[in-house]
Amino acid sequence: MKITAVIMAGGRGERFWPKSRGHYPKQFLSLTQDGETMIQKTVKRLLPLVELADIFVVTNIHYAELVQQQLPGLPKENILLEPCARNTAPCIGLAAAVIRHRYGEAMMLVLPSDHLIRYEEMYVDTLRQAVAVAEQEKNLVTIGITPTYPETGYGYICFERDAKLAMPGVYRVERFVEKPDLETAKEYLSSHRYLWNSGMFVWKASSILANLEQLMPDIYAGLLRIETAVDTPDYETVLETEYQAFRSESIDFGVMEKASEIYTLPGSFGWDDVGSWLAVERINPTNEYGNYIEGDVITIGTERSTICGGKRLIAAVGVEDLIVVDTDDAILICAKNSTQDVKKVIENLKICNRSQLV
Amino acid sequence: MKITAVIMAGGRGERFWPKSRGHYPKQFLSLTQDGETMIQKTVKRLLPLVELADIFVVTNIHYAELVQQQLPGLPKENILLEPCARNTAPCIGLAAAVIRHRYGEAMMLVLPSDHLIRYEEMYVDTLRQAVAVAEQEKNLVTIGITPTYPETGYGYICFERDAKLAMPGVYRVERFVEKPDLETAKEYLSSHRYLWNSGMFVWKASSILANLEQLMPDIYAGLLRIETAVDTPDYETVLETEYQAFRSESIDFGVMEKASEIYTLPGSFGWDDVGSWLAVERINPTNEYGNYIEGDVITIGTERSTICGGKRLIAAVGVEDLIVVDTDDAILICAKNSTQDVKKVIENLKICNRSQLV
Repeated sequence: MKITAVIMAGGRGERFWPKSRGHYPKQFLSLTQDGETMIQKTVKRLLPLVELADIFVVTNIHYAELVQQQLPGLPKENILLEPCARNTAPCIGLAAAVIRHRYGEAMMLVLPSDHLIRYEEMYVDTLRQAVAVAEQEKNLVTIGITPTYPETGYGYICFERDAKLAMPGVYRVERFVEKPDLETAKEYLSSHRYLWNSGMFVWKASSILANLEQLMPDIYAGLLRIETAVDTPDYETVLETEYQAFRSESIDFGVMEKASEIYTLPGSFGWDDVGSWLAVERINPTNEYGNYIEGDVITIGTERSTICGGKRLIAAVGVEDLIVVDTDDAILICAKNSTQDVKKVIENLKICNRSQLV
Repeated sequence: MKITAVIMAGGRGERFWPKSRGHYPKQFLSLTQDGETMIQKTVKRLLPLVELADIFVVTNIHYAELVQQQLPGLPKENILLEPCARNTAPCIGLAAAVIRHRYGEAMMLVLPSDHLIRYEEMYVDTLRQAVAVAEQEKNLVTIGITPTYPETGYGYICFERDAKLAMPGVYRVERFVEKPDLETAKEYLSSHRYLWNSGMFVWKASSILANLEQLMPDIYAGLLRIETAVDTPDYETVLETEYQAFRSESIDFGVMEKASEIYTLPGSFGWDDVGSWLAVERINPTNEYGNYIEGDVITIGTERSTICGGKRLIAAVGVEDLIVVDTDDAILICAKNSTQDVKKVIENLKICNRSQLV
């Protein structure tokens, strides 16, 4: 069966301010020394499994140009433009409708555009295995991540450890749970029955569309009208009308939490959601003082810090556990234990109508 | 007797990098919210005691334009330009020679250009009292600062507490001592016989010239040749030749440590040498979180920090005890307990031949 990939690249993401902006979100940033952007890496690591011509990017209409610039080899018709943000259920539904129209039936690897994978061969192996599971019946497969600590910022997948399945290393999902508090997260970790929900899914176009028809019939009806208009002059108008009318809903809430026949594969391929500036020192080599340094930077007595220079010299003296990010019009200086508060800066800027900085 | 002031403004001062630069040293910076520069404040606080026409500024030839810009009312002939840096003895000698040429005899208040005084009326009162002492005989008077803690970065003045003098509050100087180690500084503090050496001197032109003639005859001979050339077309050439030939020597080592009849007045007028970026929060009002903020700055959970913004937004998140100074081509991020290491940044820049940043 034809394997396609659907890369979701519509997110705004404010955690990498001041490098990420409303018009330039995280998936289009390079946060590693090799200079590749997150979305470029996402496409590249798929190529052993999926042909470029079968990779789709769903993104907000405002990012169309960025996607074309960063993925020049991607066929232009594979860039699906959301007229507005409606969360992941309409986004995935749109891709499924277009894929059914183009291929009849095909496997869909649905993937975020802004995560990092350390061990790409193991990642591809896991996806291959997921494809084998998703080929059977109308199975929906989600890739879970084996937790290494009680993270409270992710949703979790609870799986049935004892369910006997044809394939080793594949588990039936019992339920999806929201972000837990620390106590609950610790219980999840010690129970060995929970995985982190990475937002990576594998299914046939027919499987997800059947589930959408059953569980989100209003959206499915709109998708049918869009599918009919694909490759006609009406496409843009129909897409605009139908998409605007969609309610905003996540695929997790809209489908995964309600569907049956959901399976999960625990992934151990060095997944990193690159959730804040803290990630930069995790995903890049640091020097002997534990610093990650980029650009024109002089450090004196500086340790365990991340310093991303811009066009000017940055001199860091006696600094510890700090994150510094310089851009042309704004500089962030943030204690490592306060990266979650970067969004407060953005709130402040919005309140003050300083939209050029957001 | 005519009272003149000699403001020494030739120092380079690297401790306020990146705002201070080789071509723009500390005395020409504004480090307070009122926008006045250090040298402007120095002149202004003298005006109750000295007419502007009797205030002299000795500075390096490279800073001539800065002095004229910042002190537009100062007669141009009162700006004495050192062709090269030769420390304070030649600098003060030059001023004394010019003053003797112009006034015959006059009182000289010799003052640094880059210190701050909180209680200016008390400062003027102390200078008046010093003038009264310096009018007698060939007395040399130095203003000492009553120490408040065992500072190891200053020289000290040891005075004879029991010497009976005509004036209360005036003490005979026993000796000048170099910067002590912490143990010694603590002993000085508890002995109640030591003052900080502030580098402020009061004497008649004839008194200091007589001491120079006796203690530094080589320099005195050169000064005589300069004095003869004042107001002649040869002045600049003679000054250039003689000044280049001077050895570099401080007035403390060249005269004060060897002369007799030295007196000191303990000053308690809120003196601050503004020795590093740490001083900025001392000499300016701070907000309820103990921050001193200047420019376009957003702080979130930030305490006890000094942030001097430039042309761009600075966002400080979760930051404590930090100094941030932004300029067009360089930004300093310095822990408060590491301000002494700012000079290492400059050393680094010099080694790398990045003189445009020094």
